[in-house]
Amino acid sequence: MPPLAEHTTTTAADALEDAEVAVIPTGSTEQHGPALALGMDHMAAEAFARTASDRDDAVVLPTVPVGVSEHHRQFDGTLYVTEETFERYVGETISSLAEHGVRKAVVVNGHGGNSSALRRAARTLREDRTAFAPPWNWWDSVEDLADDLFDEEGGHADAMESSLLWHLREDLVDPDALEAAEAGASEAWGETVHGAALGFDTIDFSESGAVGRPTQADPEKGAQVFDAARDHLHALLDWLAERPLEDCWAREHK
Amino acid sequence: MPPLAEHTTTTAADALEDAEVAVIPTGSTEQHGPALALGMDHMAAEAFARTASDRDDAVVLPTVPVGVSEHHRQFDGTLYVTEETFERYVGETISSLAEHGVRKAVVVNGHGGNSSALRRAARTLREDRTAFAPPWNWWDSVEDLADDLFDEEGGHADAMESSLLWHLREDLVDPDALEAAEAGASEAWGETVHGAALGFDTIDFSESGAVGRPTQADPEKGAQVFDAARDHLHALLDWLAERPLEDCWAREHK
Amino acid sequence: MPPLAEHTTTTAADALEDAEVAVIPTGSTEQHGPALALGMDHMAAEAFARTASDRDDAVVLPTVPVGVSEHHRQFDGTLYVTEETFERYVGETISSLAEHGVRKAVVVNGHGGNSSALRRAARTLREDRTAFAPPWNWWDSVEDLADDLFDEEGGHADAMESSLLWHLREDLVDPDALEAAEAGASEAWGETVHGAALGFDTIDFSESGAVGRPTQADPEKGAQVFDAARDHLHALLDWLAERPLEDCWAREHK
Amino acid sequence: MPPLAEHTTTTAADALEDAEVAVIPTGSTEQHGPALALGMDHMAAEAFARTASDRDDAVVLPTVPVGVSEHHRQFDGTLYVTEETFERYVGETISSLAEHGVRKAVVVNGHGGNSSALRRAARTLREDRTAFAPPWNWWDSVEDLADDLFDEEGGHADAMESSLLWHLREDLVDPDALEAAEAGASEAWGETVHGAALGFDTIDFSESGAVGRPTQADPEKGAQVFDAARDHLHALLDWLAERPLEDCWAREHK
Amino acid sequence: MPPLAEHTTTTAADALEDAEVAVIPTGSTEQHGPALALGMDHMAAEAFARTASDRDDAVVLPTVPVGVSEHHRQFDGTLYVTEETFERYVGETISSLAEHGVRKAVVVNGHGGNSSALRRAARTLREDRTAFAPPWNWWDSVEDLADDLFDEEGGHADAMESSLLWHLREDLVDPDALEAAEAGASEAWGETVHGAALGFDTIDFSESGAVGRPTQADPEKGAQVFDAARDHLHALLDWLAERPLEDCWAREHK
Amino acid sequence: MPPLAEHTTTTAADALEDAEVAVIPTGSTEQHGPALALGMDHMAAEAFARTASDRDDAVVLPTVPVGVSEHHRQFDGTLYVTEETFERYVGETISSLAEHGVRKAVVVNGHGGNSSALRRAARTLREDRTAFAPPWNWWDSVEDLADDLFDEEGGHADAMESSLLWHLREDLVDPDALEAAEAGASEAWGETVHGAALGFDTIDFSESGAVGRPTQADPEKGAQVFDAARDHLHALLDWLAERPLEDCWAREHK
Repeated sequence: MPPLAEHTTTTAADALEDAEVAVIPTGSTEQHGPALALGMDHMAAEAFARTASDRDDAVVLPTVPVGVSEHHRQFDGTLYVTEETFERYVGETISSLAEHGVRKAVVVNGHGGNSSALRRAARTLREDRTAFAPPWNWWDSVEDLADDLFDEEGGHADAMESSLLWHLREDLVDPDALEAAEAGASEAWGETVHGAALGFDTIDFSESGAVGRPTQADPEKGAQVFDAARDHLHALLDWLAERPLEDCWAREHK
Repeated sequence: MPPLAEHTTTTAADALEDAEVAVIPTGSTEQHGPALALGMDHMAAEAFARTASDRDDAVVLPTVPVGVSEHHRQFDGTLYVTEETFERYVGETISSLAEHGVRKAVVVNGHGGNSSALRRAARTLREDRTAFAPPWNWWDSVEDLADDLFDEEGGHADAMESSLLWHLREDLVDPDALEAAEAGASEAWGETVHGAALGFDTIDFSESGAVGRPTQADPEKGAQVFDAARDHLHALLDWLAERPLEDCWAREHK
Repeated sequence: MPPLAEHTTTTAADALEDAEVAVIPTGSTEQHGPALALGMDHMAAEAFARTASDRDDAVVLPTVPVGVSEHHRQFDGTLYVTEETFERYVGETISSLAEHGVRKAVVVNGHGGNSSALRRAARTLREDRTAFAPPWNWWDSVEDLADDLFDEEGGHADAMESSLLWHLREDLVDPDALEAAEAGASEAWGETVHGAALGFDTIDFSESGAVGRPTQADPEKGAQVFDAARDHLHALLDWLAERPLEDCWAREHK
Repeated sequence: MPPLAEHTTTTAADALEDAEVAVIPTGSTEQHGPALALGMDHMAAEAFARTASDRDDAVVLPTVPVGVSEHHRQFDGTLYVTEETFERYVGETISSLAEHGVRKAVVVNGHGGNSSALRRAARTLREDRTAFAPPWNWWDSVEDLADDLFDEEGGHADAMESSLLWHLREDLVDPDALEAAEAGASEAWGETVHGAALGFDTIDFSESGAVGRPTQADPEKGAQVFDAARDHLHALLDWLAERPLEDCWAREHK
Repeated sequence: MPPLAEHTTTTAADALEDAEVAVIPTGSTEQHGPALALGMDHMAAEAFARTASDRDDAVVLPTVPVGVSEHHRQFDGTLYVTEETFERYVGETISSLAEHGVRKAVVVNGHGGNSSALRRAARTLREDRTAFAPPWNWWDSVEDLADDLFDEEGGHADAMESSLLWHLREDLVDPDALEAAEAGASEAWGETVHGAALGFDTIDFSESGAVGRPTQADPEKGAQVFDAARDHLHALLDWLAERPLEDCWAREHK
Repeated sequence: MPPLAEHTTTTAADALEDAEVAVIPTGSTEQHGPALALGMDHMAAEAFARTASDRDDAVVLPTVPVGVSEHHRQFDGTLYVTEETFERYVGETISSLAEHGVRKAVVVNGHGGNSSALRRAARTLREDRTAFAPPWNWWDSVEDLADDLFDEEGGHADAMESSLLWHLREDLVDPDALEAAEAGASEAWGETVHGAALGFDTIDFSESGAVGRPTQADPEKGAQVFDAARDHLHALLDWLAERPLEDCWAREHK
């Protein structure tokens, strides 16, 4: 069915009656090094979410474009809101949808920094029996494939992300800058000193803003990543569409 | 210049250096009666905002798609967040942009229900000398033209809004439903009893969700409205780009 | 019946049993230009509210004297609280009254800056089915009369307000200062630039703090305004006293 | 000087220039047993505060009429707000006054339940070097006199309060009900079990709502109480007017 | 039964089934003058609480070691959180315990500054019918004995506290410093000017940080104080264990 | 030096002058399956923290015993506070310490659920230039050793935790219950469905509350784990004590 925003209230009534699950894309607008567009994360989320428009049992909500990116703020163009604001924005949106009867959802998330806020939002909605809305980070579903395709630990603006964007929006990747991205990149996310995770800001450990080996980027591999993750998303939507709402709620005291 | 989300952090550095003003589109996803798409308000805001991409002195931020629409919640498809959450989401986004040096902005707003939250956000940003970011409601700039073009008081999903969307996204208007929209519409916004504004929810005074006379909608008139409002927006951007930041701040005690 | 504060708990028990509606006066203590007393808004609200003491079906609460007046803060004597604090103060007061069984109320408001906070408070009380308590701004009920009596757009410390206070508290108007008030006044509220409402603070657009044509003030006209608005208030109280509480609550999903 | 609300902004400019201290009356509207009016506490505060209008160095603010009275809520007519809301309402009001240059104040308080919120507000204002605004509870200044005049421990709607109101507003005391008040009264405030202060609500330990021996009430004694407390208040105002602002702020780390 | 933290979840299931009441020790880590350890208040609370481990009907929770001590912050070593944070920390802990069925508790408190936060927490838990958890300040239960044993008004790091700690942890009292403590002490808590309680910080009225006459300290007397207060605590626990939960809740409107 | 709570304010003055870093132990009181005590996490944190008492450059604060454990709430004995409350409690405590001049700290954390709150607290303190206080999770420092010692993925009440507690407090491990713990345990933390992390509560994926293979527990291995992690902690303290405070703050915009 078309995205929710393209329905009238009349056609939405039917669509929401038919929908078993909702899909909410969330991302960020933040530095992704010298080679990738700032919108990488919300664009990826939107691209995955849009594939659900082919389904009769899923309704796609508008994309939430700014997220929890304070740790990238020293790099030009990064926008951010606080964790609490982001959690509220997404949680209340889902809660308002639930009033129309769709109470299962997948938050298709493109930005790791959003994860703990999304987990909290989902937890609260579940506690209150308002909705069951777990986040799904696209990269979590393709870890094995990523290991096959790329020789990197990565974590941000890496070969995998670069490949994906190259596949989705060729015009938003600057291949000539991948070298610079990698030259200034750290191998892995963060900075650990004797077991303590420091690295509060990306700039603490990455000169270019990237983490990983972006020069390995390849649009073909991006297509493989996209297809694989998309298939996982649809498997998840199938599973959730089938799952009785009652089974989604938090369990009682043992 | 391209929208912010399409820049890399490298090109953003230059773009933000050049930009005098930012443009942030905000709207809603809410019922607009049986004939218009739920995304009307954020789509209109986005359409106006995108015209600023032609300018060298303005940078366009991503669209905030869900707003303060609780009063439409009884109609299918309406999404909403609280005023406080919306105020925070927009205010913090602007504040994060200001860290990169762009401290004047216009919030291009497509939804009346967002106005008081946007005013508060702008007031706070101005008090703190973080940014000067007044909201601009597209309809406020074309009141005289609207009086010429349409015989209605209107206020929501009316002839003016219907015309505009028809112009922008013909596929998202259902002309056959305009009659039903008008049949169930109220003449004017709200419900007043002996001077007290009741009408807390749209459903209190409108059966179809519309307010005004949507059957007068006409895409040609929509084009006229769009062009006129767009010209006002650009005049505002010209004015703000020229205005020294110092003149924007709140004045001292008399 | 006497105002609530003059009852003992014993006589209050009976009075609250008899009361169908409560009346809560709210205003501000803020600059009203060089000719009018700072207490204008709460004094007007109190004057209207007190007329309800003649009714057997209405109980009058104490006056809330400080409101949402931050935008007047550059003028001497202005007091203010934040919108959120004001909303909470009034909303919680009404909620506490509701515990004694009086769940319909009119907030008799004398200050425009309070309006959106009062609307939010009323909306929340209604959502929770705690109370139905719409605000009533005295000036909204006499717009036509004001057009007949005064040649001004006005909006603050204008001819209408000056006349009303002159009628209510002659000692608190300085007729000799009306000329200065008008000389430094703006014609209309706020400041609009290409459709954008600027004018965040009164001082941005008014030198004297007044908006309108205060030299037209006249205590006789003030009396007319008072009588007309009072009659509207009582008509509203009649209407609300009759209205079943069930009809006051928010409607269910369509 | 006249109360602040009776000044225009022009005369307020001078008055605030002259004023060394402000006086803010705070109280409550809450049950005071069968014999005393609900407004007892804010009326008393107002009466004390008004005596400061005779001074050239003090400006009197409007009365805050509803306070922290949740613990009286089971008795008819009690109004209340939360501690946090009350703290904010008073604190923000004082803060707004400070913008006009008056940064020393006495909060003349008539209700014990307000005390901890007022202490917190005063502490915060002092920390921030916004204002020095200690609360003054009228009864705390006349403990010795009370011991001489009345044979009671008391604490609420007792002989001392009844006498004071009798003196101030004879029409708001019902002498015939004093017997009933005392018959249902507890001797002392609260309820202690093995050292634990229970008595969360007044109804937990008092049948009539009174605490003490109201039958000892006497308007002559009320006059003595009033005069003595008033003299203490003026001594406090003298002291505070003289005290350099610098000496009011919190001390540095030892 | 052993303290809760020493149970496994399996043995806790039985213990919580048997427990009628919980005991939560709360205190502070704050200056107690030159002679007593900073941990005085939480150590005392813990010592009293541990005596409840001998009971089969009481379960002892871990000690909350930092409290509302901002007013001691100018003295080295003082730690503190805000009242709101402390109230939440203790209230939520009790609320989580209530999920396991133990809904009556005594908060064994060693620090006067915690009292109003604990009262508020207890009030809220009671309102919500989550738990009945009154605070018990050890010194409130032994006022008469203190009058017999010590010739002081006291209030902080005084002879009574010094004696108690001497009894509990001899190693944490420096007898040689008691003289200095007393030399710089104030006689009584706070500072009153014409009935207004000033003394927002301890440093405002005490040079050494102590209030009272610590040189009277004596471990034997400390033992007497401990035994007497402990007996009161156990009497309170007996009483509360017997009290039906229904009798603990707030009463309905009169 | 002795723990802070055992100092007087006089000796604390010297100690805090000498101290380069503070150590704050945080943990939880929550189910650890049938074989381990509920206090596991705060006891482990406290044990590690206490080893810092041997240093002249470190001051040890009291243990925060209840943490972010809502996800264990269905198992008996689990206590918890919200993430926000925990973040505030720890953050404000550190902030109060910083007033005495110690502005570098390590939060020695024993509970994974506390991590994101501690990260946020540390981030805020760093942003404000109040303190630099990264959390250190003991298990993060010994991952390689754990892989050598135990054949498990684990994550909660597993062989590693069981071994550690067995080493620290033999009396608080029930070896006979380790089999039951493992029988009902999950292999790894959480529950993933097509890339989406479900498993909001432990009970969703573990019958016994344990995650891992507790039957491999061995006090000798616990000793190895303890020694290795302790050494890492001290290396971290050495590093932090040396690090100039200026180098700890967030970096400026690139």
